[in-house]
Amino acid sequence: MVVVAILAAGKGTRMKSNLPKVLHALGGKSLVERVIDSVEPLSPSRRIVIVGYQSQEVKTAMDSISGLEFVEQTVQLGTGHAIQQLLPALADYSGDLLVLNGDVPLLRTETLQSLWQTHQENQNAATILTAYLPDPKGYGRVFCDGEGVVQQIVEDKDCTAAQRQNRRINAGIYCFRWADLARVLPHLQANNAQKEYYLTDAVTQVGKVMAVDVEDYQEILGINDRLQLATAHAILQQRVKEKWMMAGVTLIDPSSITIDETVELEPDVIIEPQTHLRGNTLIATGSRIGPGTLIENSQVGEKVTVQYSVVTDSVIQPGTRIGPYAHLRGHVEVGAGCRIGNFVELKNTQLGDRTNVAHLSYLGDTTAGTQVNIGAGTITANYDGVRKHRTKIGDRTKTGSNSVLVAPVTLGDDVYVAAGSTVTEDVPNDALVIARSRQVVKSEWQKKNQS
Amino acid sequence: MVVVAILAAGKGTRMKSNLPKVLHALGGKSLVERVIDSVEPLSPSRRIVIVGYQSQEVKTAMDSISGLEFVEQTVQLGTGHAIQQLLPALADYSGDLLVLNGDVPLLRTETLQSLWQTHQENQNAATILTAYLPDPKGYGRVFCDGEGVVQQIVEDKDCTAAQRQNRRINAGIYCFRWADLARVLPHLQANNAQKEYYLTDAVTQVGKVMAVDVEDYQEILGINDRLQLATAHAILQQRVKEKWMMAGVTLIDPSSITIDETVELEPDVIIEPQTHLRGNTLIATGSRIGPGTLIENSQVGEKVTVQYSVVTDSVIQPGTRIGPYAHLRGHVEVGAGCRIGNFVELKNTQLGDRTNVAHLSYLGDTTAGTQVNIGAGTITANYDGVRKHRTKIGDRTKTGSNSVLVAPVTLGDDVYVAAGSTVTEDVPNDALVIARSRQVVKSEWQKKNQS
Amino acid sequence: MVVVAILAAGKGTRMKSNLPKVLHALGGKSLVERVIDSVEPLSPSRRIVIVGYQSQEVKTAMDSISGLEFVEQTVQLGTGHAIQQLLPALADYSGDLLVLNGDVPLLRTETLQSLWQTHQENQNAATILTAYLPDPKGYGRVFCDGEGVVQQIVEDKDCTAAQRQNRRINAGIYCFRWADLARVLPHLQANNAQKEYYLTDAVTQVGKVMAVDVEDYQEILGINDRLQLATAHAILQQRVKEKWMMAGVTLIDPSSITIDETVELEPDVIIEPQTHLRGNTLIATGSRIGPGTLIENSQVGEKVTVQYSVVTDSVIQPGTRIGPYAHLRGHVEVGAGCRIGNFVELKNTQLGDRTNVAHLSYLGDTTAGTQVNIGAGTITANYDGVRKHRTKIGDRTKTGSNSVLVAPVTLGDDVYVAAGSTVTEDVPNDALVIARSRQVVKSEWQKKNQS
Repeated sequence: MVVVAILAAGKGTRMKSNLPKVLHALGGKSLVERVIDSVEPLSPSRRIVIVGYQSQEVKTAMDSISGLEFVEQTVQLGTGHAIQQLLPALADYSGDLLVLNGDVPLLRTETLQSLWQTHQENQNAATILTAYLPDPKGYGRVFCDGEGVVQQIVEDKDCTAAQRQNRRINAGIYCFRWADLARVLPHLQANNAQKEYYLTDAVTQVGKVMAVDVEDYQEILGINDRLQLATAHAILQQRVKEKWMMAGVTLIDPSSITIDETVELEPDVIIEPQTHLRGNTLIATGSRIGPGTLIENSQVGEKVTVQYSVVTDSVIQPGTRIGPYAHLRGHVEVGAGCRIGNFVELKNTQLGDRTNVAHLSYLGDTTAGTQVNIGAGTITANYDGVRKHRTKIGDRTKTGSNSVLVAPVTLGDDVYVAAGSTVTEDVPNDALVIARSRQVVKSEWQKKNQS
Repeated sequence: MVVVAILAAGKGTRMKSNLPKVLHALGGKSLVERVIDSVEPLSPSRRIVIVGYQSQEVKTAMDSISGLEFVEQTVQLGTGHAIQQLLPALADYSGDLLVLNGDVPLLRTETLQSLWQTHQENQNAATILTAYLPDPKGYGRVFCDGEGVVQQIVEDKDCTAAQRQNRRINAGIYCFRWADLARVLPHLQANNAQKEYYLTDAVTQVGKVMAVDVEDYQEILGINDRLQLATAHAILQQRVKEKWMMAGVTLIDPSSITIDETVELEPDVIIEPQTHLRGNTLIATGSRIGPGTLIENSQVGEKVTVQYSVVTDSVIQPGTRIGPYAHLRGHVEVGAGCRIGNFVELKNTQLGDRTNVAHLSYLGDTTAGTQVNIGAGTITANYDGVRKHRTKIGDRTKTGSNSVLVAPVTLGDDVYVAAGSTVTEDVPNDALVIARSRQVVKSEWQKKNQS
Repeated sequence: MVVVAILAAGKGTRMKSNLPKVLHALGGKSLVERVIDSVEPLSPSRRIVIVGYQSQEVKTAMDSISGLEFVEQTVQLGTGHAIQQLLPALADYSGDLLVLNGDVPLLRTETLQSLWQTHQENQNAATILTAYLPDPKGYGRVFCDGEGVVQQIVEDKDCTAAQRQNRRINAGIYCFRWADLARVLPHLQANNAQKEYYLTDAVTQVGKVMAVDVEDYQEILGINDRLQLATAHAILQQRVKEKWMMAGVTLIDPSSITIDETVELEPDVIIEPQTHLRGNTLIATGSRIGPGTLIENSQVGEKVTVQYSVVTDSVIQPGTRIGPYAHLRGHVEVGAGCRIGNFVELKNTQLGDRTNVAHLSYLGDTTAGTQVNIGAGTITANYDGVRKHRTKIGDRTKTGSNSVLVAPVTLGDDVYVAAGSTVTEDVPNDALVIARSRQVVKSEWQKKNQS
């Protein structure tokens, strides 16, 4: 049994932000959400977030995560002081405590599992996560015996020249046998320049302590400023992109692409440069996305191409071509073999198979059948200034250029709307509808008017 | 005389693809096409592609390359086995054989020339390409005497600690005196864990063997997964971009730009970030392209600017400004000093000099003269639902906003089309054409309708 | 008192350009302008640019910088020869001379201040800028005693093996006591392969010389080709972007973003990938800009979002949402809480608060009030083929889809323009204006026309 404590009370001064540090976003999720997600597979019995700076904002932001507990640390006197706040909440608890940092968002679940497993198998009083850093400067060094039992943790400033050569550092992530920690916690001293209570001091007092190395030292990156936030973003993106490349996805110029971890890609998808895939998005095999495209929360079928477009909350059936410069604004379903061309906006609209909306159109709140051809400049006037109304268009119907369909209005199958017409009443199947003036020519007008 | 054999029978399991590995695209060409192109300047007497996995797909994809021969390797039992399949085809051949890999696409022609030249000048039985790798782990090491004659090739796993220090590796690219190889080939053994016949085993049996170093070790990169494909793309792009920068082209943020090798750029062209130049494209001096622009198979004259636009199969004369958000969709010719503005699509259209199409227009199948002004929202209705028709517009003609020209239709010189008009019949020179209703005002309508 | 001399006479052959090297642009300013700007805070008494190759072009390009002097070096015989040209102009001068290179654009003002300060405090005859390079090959090495007094400057080719280990190099930036230099200058010899007069030769003859190290060796990068220009751009961008990240701005994928040094960003601004901020631009706190956005010379208020858009010379009030695919073309003011949507162009236009222009519109030379709703496809016809005219739209007025407002025209408050109408005359408050034909339906038309 394990209880997870997440340190999330700090302000994060170097972020220079009105937002508490742990709420900053990294690839679509806040830092602290990432920490909570990483620990989920361990099925912790309780998850306790220690909040302090702007605690109400932090709690509100995490409202949607059920079962979280919050403990207040009203003044921030160090990590040891933070964990002291758990004493009342864990008065009768006899299991393990996993201590995580709300601003260390890249730890893998596998790492936490390995930490906890070592802790249990060796019946440790404490187990600490360690890492070998290329440049360990500033970190406390961890010295172990041959069995991995910690002999000493020495702060960087207290290291001898020889000790300073040790690149194995304390990552600040701990697993404790709570009973042992609870015994030690009340006696922590703040004997240091900062007058803070350090959890590290407890480690050396609880009993047998072992160290577990993180495989990839990038996991322990803490976020203290926006440069580190950008670094974390790059690390996360590299993880995600390598995963998909190894799974058979071609990324052309991977460094220019971003892919949320929530996105699913099938093999033989090709992603062109400067493309961003976000949220609950799926791209099926054989599709080519980009360049310059943003797709969010959308399902894209096989062999679809999307170029220089923005697609949100939409479903696109196989073989359809989108863009350049199309905008599927939400609640859009496009059938198979369709062509959605340039300067076309679709919103809350369903299109049947082999239907084309090729140029300069806005279709909102519209249902169109199969093999419909929407002429260039056709607009559905779905808003009368007060309410939105629906336009229905039958199969094989064609609208002429610059026509307007004033909703609510229904056009039957095989209707032909003449160019430049404004259609305000329903049109039956097979009909031609025309609503425009005859052409009048005034000769030699230019000469008269410009002389 | 040299015959070229290209190994292209493998599946490429780690590509996780339905496509055979050698058909994967790298900068607009398949991997195997790149290999074939690289060897072209050696004027090989025959080019034989050894196919196996999805051989029909590979052959079909290479259909357009004339004079290629294909030999089937129906089961894949190693590189030696692959070359054994050539024995019937080369029964009477007495020249050299150059063995290339269909998945090693970055070899320079100069490297192959150097390999073959050394082979000929030294009357070698075999000459192998070698490279000094920063990390030679996993590769066979090549040991030569002072004259460059190969003494030994030792597989990585068989190396002593001392041998493992040798960073000179066998790149798997060979030139053979065919008569010597043909004598040895039938006797190859598959004495290894994989039970495969290795061409390397033949090398040590044919007679005098020399090694030639590749200058740039990046050339020998083999493509086995999509990460390596991305790496190859980056190497290729760096080559192309450095070439153009040294030739006097400014690239702003080169890493965000891609340029096909088929593109020609004149000095003092400026390419802005996130721009992609593809196919048979030429950009003349003084032009500024990008940001966010894709140009394919197009000729761009001097001092043209193109910003946030997509241009395909088009010709743009000097001094013209394009974009942002323009789309020249194909078979477009734009005269000198024109202005093609935002949300404008041109397709199969010719425009004379100093003609403007500044906003929200679609011109398809249109010929317009010089100094024409196409008003915002003007559309040529070129499609009657069955056929496409042409629109012709004379010099100095002006169309009003949201006008429609219903093709086939011809407007003379100096015509003025009133805003909101749909023009369905031809208009003579100098005429005003108007086709709209008079304005009717209904007073206090808002009050009546919303109370 | 200090006079600044800037060497700007060279052609820059390796730039392969028609433009003199020092006029090439780097982040919105020419190389030589950057050098002039860097020295401004030293308040030099005179700034003399030594011009030669295309001297007229260089002078013209710098016309707007007041108080510059130009001295011609009609043939280019080396740096010493260039400074010799100053002898007449500085005949009676008794202060210091700071010698800068017009193609070394990244020197920080702090570095120049430190150089001059050391020069003055130590009463040196000359003080030279030195740098420790990772790879000093090709540079002259500088040897000093313990006090920083230069003992020897040895050209790379003249170095012993031991001397070559010295990574401290001469950056070619000097401060001289002019009187000492003027005495030595006439006696310089061109005893070298290039037959050039080197300023370095003067250094060793003037008297006491000290060296000052530049902190960041990247500052001394000289621009000789377009690769170095791209490198300088990357260095400059990294400086700017790190500054803003440390000041509380989130950059998502910083390497894909460019920010001119003239831009101001408030904390908690988020910049998405592939975004470019240029000129005199300010983005206020809480705004999210990008992806794929270019903003130039514009003021953006708090909590504004701009996505995939181009904004030039505009002011956007708080809470407004722009894009994707909007173009604010210049002299645009958008009120608070507005929505400017896709395929919308605004030019020389002012919009009140909570006004929407959501789709496919062009508004030029237009003033609109608050809570106006501009329907999809609405266009202001501001150009009669000869002159531009203004459109005025009152508060709460709504225009229907594909309507045209033919300027000059004024619509009152609470006007409703019917879809498809072309409005040519003024409309009073509260009125409905309609200018279109009634709809005519021709039954079974498709059957008749396609059988």
